[in-house]
Order: sequence, then structure tokens, then C-alpha cells
Amino acid sequence: MRTLIKGGTVVTCAETFKADVVVEGERIDAIGAAFSGHFDKTIDATGKYLMPGALDVHTHLDMPFGGSSSSDDFETGTRAALWGGTTTVVDFAIQAKGQALRQGLDNWHAKAQGKACSDYSFHLICTDLPENVIGEMDKVVDEGVTSFKLFMAYPGVLMVDDSTIYRALLQARENGALVCMHAENGGAIDVMIKQAVAAGKTEPKWHALTRPPQMEAEATHRALAMAEVAGVPLYIVHLSAAEAMQEVRRARDRGVKAYAETCPQYLFLSYDNYLEPGFAGAKYVMSPPLRPKGNEEHLWKALALGDLQAVSTDHCPFNMSGQKELGKESFAKIPNGAPGIETRLLLLYNGGVNTGLISLNRFVELVSTNPARMFGLYPKKGTILPGADADILIWDPKKQVTISAATHHMRVDYNPYEGWKVVGAPATVLLRGKVMLENGTFTGKAGDGRFVKRYRPEFKSP
Amino acid sequence: MRTLIKGGTVVTCAETFKADVVVEGERIDAIGAAFSGHFDKTIDATGKYLMPGALDVHTHLDMPFGGSSSSDDFETGTRAALWGGTTTVVDFAIQAKGQALRQGLDNWHAKAQGKACSDYSFHLICTDLPENVIGEMDKVVDEGVTSFKLFMAYPGVLMVDDSTIYRALLQARENGALVCMHAENGGAIDVMIKQAVAAGKTEPKWHALTRPPQMEAEATHRALAMAEVAGVPLYIVHLSAAEAMQEVRRARDRGVKAYAETCPQYLFLSYDNYLEPGFAGAKYVMSPPLRPKGNEEHLWKALALGDLQAVSTDHCPFNMSGQKELGKESFAKIPNGAPGIETRLLLLYNGGVNTGLISLNRFVELVSTNPARMFGLYPKKGTILPGADADILIWDPKKQVTISAATHHMRVDYNPYEGWKVVGAPATVLLRGKVMLENGTFTGKAGDGRFVKRYRPEFKSP
Amino acid sequence: MRTLIKGGTVVTCAETFKADVVVEGERIDAIGAAFSGHFDKTIDATGKYLMPGALDVHTHLDMPFGGSSSSDDFETGTRAALWGGTTTVVDFAIQAKGQALRQGLDNWHAKAQGKACSDYSFHLICTDLPENVIGEMDKVVDEGVTSFKLFMAYPGVLMVDDSTIYRALLQARENGALVCMHAENGGAIDVMIKQAVAAGKTEPKWHALTRPPQMEAEATHRALAMAEVAGVPLYIVHLSAAEAMQEVRRARDRGVKAYAETCPQYLFLSYDNYLEPGFAGAKYVMSPPLRPKGNEEHLWKALALGDLQAVSTDHCPFNMSGQKELGKESFAKIPNGAPGIETRLLLLYNGGVNTGLISLNRFVELVSTNPARMFGLYPKKGTILPGADADILIWDPKKQVTISAATHHMRVDYNPYEGWKVVGAPATVLLRGKVMLENGTFTGKAGDGRFVKRYRPEFKSP
Amino acid sequence: MRTLIKGGTVVTCAETFKADVVVEGERIDAIGAAFSGHFDKTIDATGKYLMPGALDVHTHLDMPFGGSSSSDDFETGTRAALWGGTTTVVDFAIQAKGQALRQGLDNWHAKAQGKACSDYSFHLICTDLPENVIGEMDKVVDEGVTSFKLFMAYPGVLMVDDSTIYRALLQARENGALVCMHAENGGAIDVMIKQAVAAGKTEPKWHALTRPPQMEAEATHRALAMAEVAGVPLYIVHLSAAEAMQEVRRARDRGVKAYAETCPQYLFLSYDNYLEPGFAGAKYVMSPPLRPKGNEEHLWKALALGDLQAVSTDHCPFNMSGQKELGKESFAKIPNGAPGIETRLLLLYNGGVNTGLISLNRFVELVSTNPARMFGLYPKKGTILPGADADILIWDPKKQVTISAATHHMRVDYNPYEGWKVVGAPATVLLRGKVMLENGTFTGKAGDGRFVKRYRPEFKSP
Repeated sequence: MRTLIKGGTVVTCAETFKADVVVEGERIDAIGAAFSGHFDKTIDATGKYLMPGALDVHTHLDMPFGGSSSSDDFETGTRAALWGGTTTVVDFAIQAKGQALRQGLDNWHAKAQGKACSDYSFHLICTDLPENVIGEMDKVVDEGVTSFKLFMAYPGVLMVDDSTIYRALLQARENGALVCMHAENGGAIDVMIKQAVAAGKTEPKWHALTRPPQMEAEATHRALAMAEVAGVPLYIVHLSAAEAMQEVRRARDRGVKAYAETCPQYLFLSYDNYLEPGFAGAKYVMSPPLRPKGNEEHLWKALALGDLQAVSTDHCPFNMSGQKELGKESFAKIPNGAPGIETRLLLLYNGGVNTGLISLNRFVELVSTNPARMFGLYPKKGTILPGADADILIWDPKKQVTISAATHHMRVDYNPYEGWKVVGAPATVLLRGKVMLENGTFTGKAGDGRFVKRYRPEFKSP
Repeated sequence: MRTLIKGGTVVTCAETFKADVVVEGERIDAIGAAFSGHFDKTIDATGKYLMPGALDVHTHLDMPFGGSSSSDDFETGTRAALWGGTTTVVDFAIQAKGQALRQGLDNWHAKAQGKACSDYSFHLICTDLPENVIGEMDKVVDEGVTSFKLFMAYPGVLMVDDSTIYRALLQARENGALVCMHAENGGAIDVMIKQAVAAGKTEPKWHALTRPPQMEAEATHRALAMAEVAGVPLYIVHLSAAEAMQEVRRARDRGVKAYAETCPQYLFLSYDNYLEPGFAGAKYVMSPPLRPKGNEEHLWKALALGDLQAVSTDHCPFNMSGQKELGKESFAKIPNGAPGIETRLLLLYNGGVNTGLISLNRFVELVSTNPARMFGLYPKKGTILPGADADILIWDPKKQVTISAATHHMRVDYNPYEGWKVVGAPATVLLRGKVMLENGTFTGKAGDGRFVKRYRPEFKSP
Repeated sequence: MRTLIKGGTVVTCAETFKADVVVEGERIDAIGAAFSGHFDKTIDATGKYLMPGALDVHTHLDMPFGGSSSSDDFETGTRAALWGGTTTVVDFAIQAKGQALRQGLDNWHAKAQGKACSDYSFHLICTDLPENVIGEMDKVVDEGVTSFKLFMAYPGVLMVDDSTIYRALLQARENGALVCMHAENGGAIDVMIKQAVAAGKTEPKWHALTRPPQMEAEATHRALAMAEVAGVPLYIVHLSAAEAMQEVRRARDRGVKAYAETCPQYLFLSYDNYLEPGFAGAKYVMSPPLRPKGNEEHLWKALALGDLQAVSTDHCPFNMSGQKELGKESFAKIPNGAPGIETRLLLLYNGGVNTGLISLNRFVELVSTNPARMFGLYPKKGTILPGADADILIWDPKKQVTISAATHHMRVDYNPYEGWKVVGAPATVLLRGKVMLENGTFTGKAGDGRFVKRYRPEFKSP
Repeated sequence: MRTLIKGGTVVTCAETFKADVVVEGERIDAIGAAFSGHFDKTIDATGKYLMPGALDVHTHLDMPFGGSSSSDDFETGTRAALWGGTTTVVDFAIQAKGQALRQGLDNWHAKAQGKACSDYSFHLICTDLPENVIGEMDKVVDEGVTSFKLFMAYPGVLMVDDSTIYRALLQARENGALVCMHAENGGAIDVMIKQAVAAGKTEPKWHALTRPPQMEAEATHRALAMAEVAGVPLYIVHLSAAEAMQEVRRARDRGVKAYAETCPQYLFLSYDNYLEPGFAGAKYVMSPPLRPKGNEEHLWKALALGDLQAVSTDHCPFNMSGQKELGKESFAKIPNGAPGIETRLLLLYNGGVNTGLISLNRFVELVSTNPARMFGLYPKKGTILPGADADILIWDPKKQVTISAATHHMRVDYNPYEGWKVVGAPATVLLRGKVMLENGTFTGKAGDGRFVKRYRPEFKSP
């Protein structure tokens, strides 16, 4: 199968240029001014951008919560991802307390197997690392799961103490994995939550008020200080607060390999959303919470200046009906999470590229190249080069879309950006050479996606 | 009893001027150019400085450790203090786990009662603050013990978790006490210690290498972040590392009432001392440990620029013989602490004032006025003013002293500054009008010292 | 003449205490709890503060401008100063281009001689320092004029180039004088002014818009960099912008002896005042100009944290009628300057002490002790100590005053703070033991003030 | 003419990948996995890197100085450039005082015409910009000279005052050119030079001691502050000091489009070189001077973290014999400048890439892509893409070279890096498709190089 994509403008993390692209089977074969010869298929990309398919390295599909689960499974979630231009997701497998690491991983393999439409991989969340378990991390890495996530929040559930964090960092130093951190001071936050609830402060906004930005900055600083002493890189997930951003910058300035992602919700929404009438604020209950107005501006500047490495989604959808409403009596019982796997590129392109806040190349870098690099998938994923997987996103910069729960493809009954109009959207999406989306029709199917083993990421000098 | 001190130069935290001082009973009565009338005693202070008696707000006298105790009790310790120009000590009472707060305090009252030569007060170390105990803090404050200390180090012994710290800060917000913090990340340090010991790295220097400065900076930042959210002042004890200093500065710049003391050992000694031959490095095993060369310079600059508020001693002596030597096989078993209650002013004056690094006034501020202010003893203590306690240190700037265990008055078999020659020393010391030291003779006695109830400190704008 | 001031609370730069004060002739004799014996006069200061008389180290009395002069001469200006609690002024003598330094100084001695009500001294503004003149600086210093001022603004009039500045700094290094700097980049500002005028932008607000804060920060940085290389202290006059403040802080952090004053206008007024109707904005035309709202807050914080050393007035009054109105057609012709010699303490006390932004002691430090120290007048002036000049300001913290041109004692037809109500004002003012103001009556007279020779200031470690 | 370069690894500013490259005429045609068909020439690049030809945007060829000129003319200089892998130079044309801008440009066109081996362009140095001349800048830009350089040093010769700088920045705002700045405070430096010479301090090292880093930082800050107010980007040439680097960073942090280059001499040499025996220090007399040891480390870190945008040479060679020796009696008479056009890539690759301080991609970015972008030559120059000029540098990472005046191709009688051994060097160099260097033989000729008109650079968000 030989495909020619002609007339388009290729956009990589660093360059923008008119060129035709030849795809041979699952791979990109050549990039040039004009190709002749036979092609099985020709795609006209005139007036469009050819970008590497996007990677979403922070999703929670089919994640157990209470008696139910996050509302998207691997089929609905990865299909929605492709609708939005994302061709690979890296989801979080979870080791339950007392479990072997492998068990956590096996559970997630079972969830994805045969269902995923996009390519996928896993990070592994560790909740319990006694001496007889911690060594298992090495095997997990050998199997292509080269990143782990730890929590400094949710005491009694997911939180691990500083001693465990430090031991995990040392283990990662040996096995070459990257540690990802949920950085919020769970101990102090827990006190604040209990005090708020005891005082009858139970509306959704109290979710934010009991998780102040200083407690994110604190944990960020702490995690980076331990990474510094251990001599390992660290990746801060879903950075939300300017104060935490500042800690990442400081760490980097003193030589720590400090990396961080943010998510669209922290770039486009704010604390004010919690004040929406009735229980509507529950839509935005996620951790870290949305921050006060003005904070977004700081994060946009950080994106522009290169202080943040990636934009992922933390996609973790719960229906308002039957799920979010469990917290009607108290914010402390609202399932934490919101949908976003489908809208990431729409929002970031419209709010960042169309406004001039970030360049086209920076856009590609944030949603595709950097995530691929940091998590050991580059240059297989994340770029348009001879030899790379032909995961190609053909982007129509003029296409208009109105975001709505009525039309989105995520399995959730609301959209945090309901009614927002954006310009710029996927026209065609190829996954390893196969057209998955074309002319507004999804042409892929469950099982098209493959598990991708990841390399140990390299963090050379910039 | 009416005493005239004439011919001297009065030095306060801000001013230096020639004046005579009249003492009436236990108080200062007047300061002026020349007084006439009858005096019961006249002290000629020509060529000498009149300073307010110094306060040492960080001592551990008669502190239980393993089967024995720190080697100075309240009699020997406070006598040595007076020899060194210190007229008031604030020692640390300890609540043992499971104990009522009052019990901890009562134990320390019993240790000091009738023995103290200098005036004294207590901070209370809390190790255990369940819901039914935390409220006792308020009573303790009402009894004049207006400061508490918490530990972020020594897991399983003294360390409290972030949740406890945050609750204690909230309680202090209500009762007006000042929280003092031992800021080192005990969780990570504990892992480092175990790994070092397991690897056979047991010499004294490993005490320092397993407590890196970043872990002090981390805990300092964390404590200050929680104080910021709680809206209370915080006092960092025995700050040792430039990196921690930087965190205090940053907190202050963002409006936190962040205060810190350092100690002479961090200004005059360094990591290199751990490399002294044989087991001699054990003399310097204390926490935080001595820092690498160059760090002292940073702290001196911080003293000069006003970034540090006080110099105290963390006096916690253990004899080499029978105590320190418990750790011959492993640094992890060496009792933590070193003597210094007697040498603080000698060292700081010689190394700071004689060199021009700090002014005479700053010297007085650091050892007397600021400690008095921060811990609710000013203007009773800490200054020379009409109405203040006549705790007067008459300082001879020309007196030469050679520091030595052979001649010091602390009950400990070594001195970390053995053989050091300094210029400037106490000539005469008055405690509430009574001459305690004169002509090289100690004229006070056990029981001369009184427990002093302290006010809630006020932290107005500077 | 022996006077007793009894029942008051003495406030120095560092301490606040109840005490009686005995004045003998022109000096303070003693401070104490209770004095007996004969007194020629007794002043009851119950409920009042005894502060050292304030020093205003930045005034322009009788300063030639165009055909006329600033509207206060040494008699009216220093009388108004005393009404406001200021007992010493340091005015700016000016060397005209081509003149000997001595000539500039002689001119100002002639202006003040026999007219001054308060004590006074001079700085000398140098506008022209060729090789054959620069050496005269040393003689000037020997005569007690130990500070010089240079301008980086007003090209063609007062501005000197970098080469001249650097040479003057080197000379000051030798003779021990302090260099004061008007820091604005005159070259760039001049272009902006010409462009604005050419474009018909002539209203008073353009005065501010053509002198942006970055140009003050720039010159501040430049001056401090040269002082750093020359190895001398530098004093920035009338610092107005947060950006300039930041440069002073940075210089200090790298070890430069960098000092700065601000003025009440920058603490209480803002750019918005230029927008007052008609030509009213001209009242506030001064250089540097008033800064945008929010800037004041930054300066207040700097005052509180100790980043600024003094508050002076830059008193340089011009009547609206006949003087300011020269600039009706163009802001570029409005005489630069505004009155303030009388209202400094009223404003700073009300806005700083009554609000809690600064302490009483810091107030005294900023208006009296620090100016005295920095300009070689301490401890003769600037404190209340045995031996000091009996310049005593008895402050009534409850007295209410409404500021108005109708009642003020400055010779100028408007007041920038017209109608402002403040609480706290002078009750009684003594100059070297003589009562100058009492019961709302001025009891001094022209000629009561003396020229005070100044020492070379010492800038020891803090 | 159709050329295939096969088997190599393409290195761009962002990516490294194995691919074959097809060149058609003067342009790159295609990049791919394997190409078939006819080729006029095939180059085997196995084991080698294909990089875009380097750009040197800071050279002084045939520059008049005193009675003579810099020792390389456009033929010898650009030939040496190609030997070192540089395919385009941007030299500095100079407007003499009183001249029209065009005259300066014409003079340089005449120097280069028919002689250049590499492609070339010009910046224009303005020394005199009265009202009737400044408008000519616009025409110069229209002719493809889209950058100007101003001097803040060399008073009386090249220096322009702040007023002129600000006016030039405003003009550039209108015509879209980039202003380049030589940032040293010439006024203060001039005083230091005169004082040193007067004091008999005349050895080469005094060149450095009279140009302290603070004076570079000062001018850097000043220039950037004016650019900030004018609202234009600014490019600092030959940044040498850590202190100046800090100013660039600060400006960028507050939103200024602040850019800077450094040069190999500041990365590899230091003040210590001035101490070489006899008059050898004269080899290194250039402005800014070499900085104290330790400074290089700071600049390397800045290169790695992205704080610097380019590495150029400031190639300005003078023979020791007959030229440098003019300053035997006084450093102030030594011609300022040193050779480097040939050794830039050798040094940077060996010292940066081989050591791991910077990545291969960052290397390409610094010597080729960024200079092309910042000066309006990208994507014609500076990258390997279909459609770009086929300026291709085939780099042999294993080739060993010993740098020496005996073998270098620059026309100058010494080399600052004499005897240095480096690994990694050009194997083959193509200029617009023509092989200029191959198998150690120069195959180009004078006149092969063309003048390249430059676009107005765009400085979008990063």
C-alpha cells in the first residue's frame, strides 16, 4: 500500500514547509518537492497542515471509581481521541495496595486488548512499594512500560510518603524509567477538607478552596528536591498553578531535569466556573482544581517560553447523572475528573495558534513531539520523517467546529466547553498508514490500535 | 539597692552612645550624661560596652537520651551561660508520645526549679497531637509558654506528619503562640541513612552526607508554605544551609512572616570537621549537620543583611567518653548534639564584630533584642532602657580568651573550638541588678534564676 | 536652661518606651523613670510621643528657575518645615556650568544666612567637572558639605555623561563624600518629549508618558553599576518606580552599598492625578513623574521591608498662578516640582503608622535617624540620646489636621493633598532646646537655624 | 545537475534521522528512505552527518583600521569560512561619520564583489544618524540589508549616545529591521583606560581590567530597556560576561524580545590568556575582553538552556607582526580583534557536542538555523528541507584536526587555539549544490559566493 499526500504544508516541532509525503505501508517513506510513480491512494492536502499524530500521555479510561468507572472505556475513549487528532494514548494502569505490579498492568492490558482504536501504552501507578515489590519495577520497564506515577495527595488511598517516593526515585535511577508525580500536599489538604465539611462548606467551590495553589507548589518543590538528591529526572503531571510553575523553573535553573505538562482546563477555565449556578460547578471538580483568573495567562506564557513540555488532558470523565451527583451533599464526594480527550487540539490550536500565543511548531511540539520524546516513543511517533510511523494528522486550519455534548464522541453527558466555537480541526487522520478519519466519517474500528512498547527515555542536554 | 554603672558605652540593637546607667533594685532606672546622689555600688565601665544580657532561645539541658541525658543540667548549663554573657535561656520541654502537654512541661519545671542560675523559660516540643490533646496548647500558652516546636525529621521518634503540622499551625493561629520548626525531610533522610549503613558507610562524615542541604531546604519550604496557607508566622530553628536560607527569603518576599535563627557552629565550622582523624568527627555530629565550606559565608551575609533574626546555640552536649562513643560502629548511633551555651558571644563577637562583618548593634540584636522580641520577653529583657530588667552584660572588647575544655564551665569533655583564641569577653554580668560575674569570679548561685512567663509575641510590620 | 519633658513615650528608630527626658541647654542630658531637682521649664508630654526632630534631606528652596525661583525661600520654607516637625533641612546648592564649586556653595550660603528658622546644610549639585574643577570637591567636603548630586536627566542643562559620573565617583572614593543621583535616562526621554510635542500631545499627562518607569530603572541600574565598579556607595534620590526599586535591591544583593529615598508623592499620588480636569494635572508635574496605580503599594512594601532608607520631600514649589501656567501650551514648559516640606510627616504617619503598614520606629528611622546617619549628622541629629542635640518633636497621635493651601505655611498657592484629613501631628517642636512650636503657635524666628557641618558618612555593615 | 547524498544521518535544529537527500540544481529536492533513478553525482555520506551549511553572522573582513585593514579580505576570509563548514557570512559594512548610509554599503559591496567564495550579506554599522540621514535606513532595508549595528563603546569613534540609539530603535520599529548592539559602557571604560595608561599599567591584561563585566552588563541592560520602551527586538552581539547574560534573561522574562550571540573565544579562553609571557596576551585583545575563569561555564549552561541564540565569531584578524605589535607600548593601541572564522564549528562541536554539553541539534541550531532565522535567511538557508538552498555540510564526527597557524586557511600569522586537537570536522561542503570542499581539497573559487538579500526577520512567539 503506497499513499501520496500532496499539496500540503508539513509542520514539525521546528519547521514548516510545503512538501509532498509518501507513505509506504505503515511508515513514512519520503518527503519532497514532487514525486512520480504509482500510488495506491492519493490524498489532496492543499491548504492543510500535515502534522504528526498527537499523543495524549495522561488519560484515565475505564478507571474504577467507587462502584462504577470513568465513563469512557478503551473503545469509546480512543475513538474520541482519534476524532480529535490524537493517535496514541498513554493511560494509567493502577497497582492496588497489596497487589503485585504485574497484576495492575495485566488488568489494564485486559481492558484495552481488542478494544483500542488508537495506539496505546501505559504508565503504572504505584500505591504500595514494600521491599519485596519495589524490584518488580525493573521488569515492568523491560516490558516497555517505562514510566511510573506516584501520588502525594489522597492520603489513605493513593498517597505514598516521602520515604517511598525517595526509594522509587532511586529504583528509577537504576532502571531508567521516568517518574511522574501528582504533586499536591495531601496531608494539609485533608485537614482543610475536613474542616470545610465540618463547617458546612459543601458546595463545589470548596473543592478548590481546600486545595490552595501553595499546596501544589509545595509538593512540586518537594518532589523536585528529592529528584535532585536522587539524581533523576521528574515529570510533574497536570501542573495547574503559577506557583507550581515557578518551582519547576527554579529546579531547572539549578540543574534538575524538571519537566511538566499542563492541561487545557487550566488554560481555558478558572475558579469562576465553580460558581456556576446550582450543582453545575461539579463538572469542573478535578484535582488539582481550576485556579483563580489570571493563572491561565501565566501558564500560556510558560507554554510560549518553553517552561512547560507538554499539554495532555487528564481525561477522566464522569457523567453528571449518576456519577458527579454522588457529591450533591458534599464536594468531597464528587468523583474527581473531567472529559477532554477529544477537544485538546481544538482548544489549544484555537486559543494558542489562532491568537498568536504559540507558534504552529510549538503546538506540534506540545501535543506530539515532546510527549513522544519524554515517554520513549520518538522517533517512531511524534514526527514526520522518513522511517517514522505514518501517524499523520491532516489539519484543516479553516474548519469550524462547535463543541457540544450533543455532538462529541466521548461517552459522557456534558462538555466543559459546551457551545464554544473554534476554528481549525482534523480533516483526515492516518494511524500507521491507515485512514481512520476522513470526510467527517470515522473509518477505523476497535482493535486497530496496538500496544506500543516504549523505550527508556533519554534526557540529554536540551 | 541603687547601682551606678559609669563611664561605659551603651550598645543597644540600634544605637551606641556613652552614658551612665542607674540601676534601682532589679530594674534600670535612668540613662544619662552624669548622675549625682547616693549609690550603694558603683561599677566603673570605662572602655567597656554595656549591652543587654543575652538570650539563648535554643538549649537542651538535662535532655533524656537513650539511658542517659545531655551532659549539662540546669545548674551547670545556666552557670556556663552566664559565664558567656547569657542571662536568660529558653529550653525545650518535651511532650512524650501519649503524654498530656502539661506533663511534658511539668517535667521540665522540675528539672529547672531551684537549680537555674540564669532566668529561664520553655518552649514545648509536641510529638503527638490527637484531637483530644491539641486543645491543651491554649492552656500552655496562657501559662506563659508561648512557643511550640515541631519536628519534620526523626521519623518514629519526634517527627509529625504534614497533617499534624497544619493542625498545630491552625491552633497557634487561635492562641497566638509561635511555632518553631526543625526543618529536615526525615522520610528521605531515613532512606539515605539506611542505605549508607547497609553499604558499610559508617564513619561520622556519613551523618552529613545522608542529610543533604536540599532536604533542609525542602522541609523549610514546606513548613513555610503551610504557615502561609494557615496565615501564621513561623520560626525556623538552627538554619544551617544556604539553600534553606533562600527559602526563608522567598517566603518573606511573598509576605509570609518567616523567621529563622542560625547557630555559631554553622558560622564557624564546616563539613571538613567530620574528616578529622579517627572518631573525632563525632564531636560535630548534630542535626542539621555542618555544611560544605562556603556555606558559612552565605550565612554571614544573611546575618549582615538582616535575613536571619537570631543566633542561638542548640546547646545539647554529650561527652565523647561514654556518650558520643556509642556511635563508634555507626554514625547513626552517635548522640546528636554539641556544646555551645558558653561560647556563643565570644565566637560571634570575635568572628563578626572584630572582622567588621556585622556591627556592634547587630550583634546585640542577634543575641539579645531579637530573641527577646520574637519570644515575648521584650522589653523586660533584650534592651537597656528605663524600666527594663537590669540584665546587663558589661563587655570588655580587649579581653583575650582561649577557648578550651580545660577551662570552660560547661559539663562536657570536649570543646568544638578547642584552642581558638578570641578577643572580647564578658567583664561583669548583672541579672536583675545582681552581680553574677565579676573579676573572673562567678558570684551567682543555683536558684538565682527565675522562670519567666512570656507574652504572646507580636509580629507587626518591621 | 534646664527643661524636663515628662510623661511621654520616647520613640527612637528601634525602641518605644515611657520615659522622662531632661534637656540641658542645647543638648539632651538624661532619660529615665523619674527625675527630681530644679527645672526651668517642664513640658507635659502625657499621651504623646517624643521623637527626634525630622530631617528633610531633599529640598529646593529659593531655587532659580527661568526668570523666577521656587516659591519658598529659606525663611518661609524652613518655617513650614518646623510646622511639620522637621528641624533640619539639607538643601541643594547648584554649581552653574563654568562656575567654581565654591561659587555654587557661596550662593546658597547667602540665600540661607540669617533667614533659616530650622538648622540646615547643603548638598552640592555638580553640572560641570572638568579636570581643573573636579579636585575642588575635596575642599567642599572638608567644609562639611559631604554629599554631591549628579543628574542623568535634563540634557543640555543639568545632565552629565557617564564619563563624568564615573570620574566623580572616583573622586568621592578619595574624599569620602556620598554621591546622590537623579536617575532617569535623559537622552531617550528627550526624544520622547520632542516626539510627543511634535505630535501635539501637550497635556500634563504627557509629562509622565514621556518619562516611563523603565527609563528610571535603567539609569538607576547604570548608576549603581558604575558605583559598583568604582567601589563607592550611592544614594538614589526620589525613587518613584517599582522597577527602579528592583534595581536597588539587586545591587544591594550583589554587595553594592546602594541606598534610596522615596517621597510622599510617590506613596500617595499616582498617574491618575494627571487626568484631573483642565490644567490641574500641572500641580503634579515633577520628575520622576507620578507612576501608575499599584506602584505605591510596591513602595510601601519596600518601606516596610527596609529596602528604602529614607522618605524626603523633593520640596520644590511653584505657584499655579504665574509659574506652573507657563506650561499651558505644553507640558514641556511646566516648571518641574511640587510642595511638600510641611506635610511629609503628617502624610507618612497617617498613611503608614495609622494603617499599620510601618511601625512607629520605622517611621522615625525613615524621616529622622536614617537621613541623619546617611548624611553625616548622626548622632548629633536623628536620635534621642544623652548628648544629642535637643531637636525634639513631641507628636500628638490624636491631633486631627485637614491639609489645605488655605492653612498651610508653605508659600505656594495650592496643595497637592488639598482637603485630606489626617490624624497625628506635631504638638511641640524643640530645636536645640528652644521651643519653636507650641500650642499651635510658631515661637521661633528667622535666624534661629544654623548651618550644620556634616561628617563624612560611614557605611559599615548593617 | 542531480546529486544524491546517501547513507548519511540528517541533523536539523530539532531532529536527527537517517535519510538520503536529493539535490536538484541549487536546491534540495527530496529527503527519503531510498531513491532510484539517475543521478549526475552520488556522494556517500555513510557514518557522517548532513547538516545545513553554517552561517557566521558576525565577521569583519577587509575592515579598515588605522592605516591598514583586518588581515583577511573577502576572498581569503570566506574561503577559510568554507574550510570550516560555514557557507554564508554576514559581514559589517560601516557608515563613516558624515557619510550617507548608502556610501557605507557601497564600499562593502565593492570589497566583496567577485571575491567572495561563500554566500554573503551585510549588516550596516551606523555611526552618525542626524535627522536627514536616519530615514535612509528604510531604503537600506528594502535592498535586503535588514539589520543595523550600533556601538555603546568607543567614544569619539563608533559610539552613539542614548538619544541616537533610541531614535534608531524607533526607525527600526517602522522598517522592520533588527538592531544589533555592541554593549559596553564606553564612557566609563574610557576613564578607566586613561587612568590605567596614566598609571603606567600598559600590558595587554589591562585591556581586560579596564573593561569590567559590569560595564557590559550595564550597557546590555540599558539597550534592552530602550528596546523595551520602543517595543522592538534587540540582538546583543558577542555577549561575553555572565552578568550580561543575566540581563538578557531578565529582559526576556519581562517580555522583551531579547536575543544574544556569544563567540567561541568566550567559551574556550579566559582572562588567564592575557597573562601569557611577553606580548603574547595581545593575541586575545578584543572587545569585550576575555573574562575570568568560570565565566565560560556560565555561558555553556546558557547555550544548553536556550538562553543564547547563536554562536558567531566576531572574526577580525590582525597579524601579530606589523599590526598587534603597534600596541607594544600600550594595550590601548593594540588593534582589537582575533581570527576565528574557520575554527568555530571545530571548537563548538568538540567542546560542546563531544562533551555532551549541547546536543547535535542544538549545535546546528546555534551555528546555522537560528542565525538564518534571526537575520531573514531562513528557510533559504539554515535547514535541510525540500526547497531550501543546497548548502550542505557533510560532517565527519571522527575526523581529527590539530588547529594551527601553520595549516589554517585564514590570512593571519597566529591562531588563538594553536596546537589544540579536536575531533569532528567538515568532510564535504556544498554551496547551492556545488561541491566547494571535498577530500581535503578546496574546489570552489572566488566569485562562487553571491550576495543574498535578506527578508525582514519575524519574531513570533517561540
